[in-house]
Amino acid sequence: MNPKSSDPAARITVAGFNQMLADQHPFASTLGIEIIDIGFGTATLLLPDRSSHQRLGGIIAGPMLMGLSDLALYAAIVGATGNSQAVTASLSINFLRGAPPGGILAHASILKTGRLAAGDVLLVPAAGGDPVAQVISTWSLPRNT
Amino acid sequence: MNPKSSDPAARITVAGFNQMLADQHPFASTLGIEIIDIGFGTATLLLPDRSSHQRLGGIIAGPMLMGLSDLALYAAIVGATGNSQAVTASLSINFLRGAPPGGILAHASILKTGRLAAGDVLLVPAAGGDPVAQVISTWSLPRNT
Amino acid sequence: MNPKSSDPAARITVAGFNQMLADQHPFASTLGIEIIDIGFGTATLLLPDRSSHQRLGGIIAGPMLMGLSDLALYAAIVGATGNSQAVTASLSINFLRGAPPGGILAHASILKTGRLAAGDVLLVPAAGGDPVAQVISTWSLPRNT
Amino acid sequence: MNPKSSDPAARITVAGFNQMLADQHPFASTLGIEIIDIGFGTATLLLPDRSSHQRLGGIIAGPMLMGLSDLALYAAIVGATGNSQAVTASLSINFLRGAPPGGILAHASILKTGRLAAGDVLLVPAAGGDPVAQVISTWSLPRNT
Repeated sequence: MNPKSSDPAARITVAGFNQMLADQHPFASTLGIEIIDIGFGTATLLLPDRSSHQRLGGIIAGPMLMGLSDLALYAAIVGATGNSQAVTASLSINFLRGAPPGGILAHASILKTGRLAAGDVLLVPAAGGDPVAQVISTWSLPRNT
Repeated sequence: MNPKSSDPAARITVAGFNQMLADQHPFASTLGIEIIDIGFGTATLLLPDRSSHQRLGGIIAGPMLMGLSDLALYAAIVGATGNSQAVTASLSINFLRGAPPGGILAHASILKTGRLAAGDVLLVPAAGGDPVAQVISTWSLPRNT
Repeated sequence: MNPKSSDPAARITVAGFNQMLADQHPFASTLGIEIIDIGFGTATLLLPDRSSHQRLGGIIAGPMLMGLSDLALYAAIVGATGNSQAVTASLSINFLRGAPPGGILAHASILKTGRLAAGDVLLVPAAGGDPVAQVISTWSLPRNT
Repeated sequence: MNPKSSDPAARITVAGFNQMLADQHPFASTLGIEIIDIGFGTATLLLPDRSSHQRLGGIIAGPMLMGLSDLALYAAIVGATGNSQAVTASLSINFLRGAPPGGILAHASILKTGRLAAGDVLLVPAAGGDPVAQVISTWSLPRNT
């Protein structure tokens, strides 16, 4: 599902996705995540710098990065399918190095849609530098209603 | 690392662990997680019922279950090693069924310690019933200071 | 899916499963895996000691343990559902310690069936001792035909 | 670890790696895997078309793809570090679609080296087309001797 100029547009706008999150996913606002972009099977989200995301030494806590990744995959899947009923079936994350303060960007890509969707996320410091974590994940897509 | 009567006691008490969390891991209090028990390589934690953990339909959001699992593993590793510098290297979670409202218990067990530790978590409804998710994870343990 | 006395019998016998493997899964005979037991959502398989499974130092190679785990999950799923069309959707393995020579037992348990099944495997030395690897996995079950 | 023109050369040649496999990793020759290329933290391997890799319907068996991925990561790590004592600590694979007959290419990239290394693999049909599986993995690197 590499984006091509002939790809259809995303099935949801950033504004529409934010409205859906406000209605249905209160944890997103708890974490303060910002939706930067949603395409056809892709999404970029930002976890801003906040002290409550950090643990000892200013390192951003792993669960925040997992939550960010999960939401980035969800945005990318809704962008590809319009199906807001998608739920995570499995998620695997490898932590590569301590995440520096300053905000983290999540780049999600969907490699397969259908009854079972799958994709990956790369987490990189917003200020630049080497990736801090890497995710692969599968999602179950109930029939759209 | 099945607990035996000859096992040494846990290397940290629940009270000591809660103090460490308050000092160093603000996300734990954000989620409202309660530490029920810590043994030598085991831990039981409770994610209480809170509306902010839920998504559409009252289902507890996946990221909350990932955060709960991560913290349960951390407690079990500190219980086995006393090493509070342990950090997650990898975590894989499978979601088995929607988590009902009413609180979720996480039962963590460590199968290996050393420079690289590993263990698993089973997440079950506090009210009883079939497990809602299953986790395996590896952790890096820097030399204790 | 803890086995209870009221559980239905396994949906396939060891003899029937071996026949299916001989017909359809030539890799099982390549590895020389023996099916010890199949129950309703459980299975025990043995990877015998063979020099071609080993790498430097007599340690059994990781891919052999992954293949053993995959087949153990498949046997447990067919034991629970009778559905031989099940295919692996995701598999995560953590290696805990070097597997000694002498054969490895895989104990698989299915925690959920349905359109998407899920379960785990614990790999232990046949001669006894601590587990050498731990697996969680999800499977897609096409409609049985 | 994106390759740049200023990157050092790979720490091992394809010929040297093949010699090492022949000496130490008999499973590689069992699978008939061909080493196409090794760079500084990258590797491309080919699993050729062989009937013993296939299951019902000509679909290449999952364990063969896991073994291929594991070996591709090993080649990429040795290419980056020269450390042939590296061992898999964790591996997660998502299967995206049935692998067609005709051979499968594995493209491995290492994102982090050190005491614990990590990277990913994308598995694609040698004849072209959409990826069939996706892997992330961590590796433990004992001190080089």
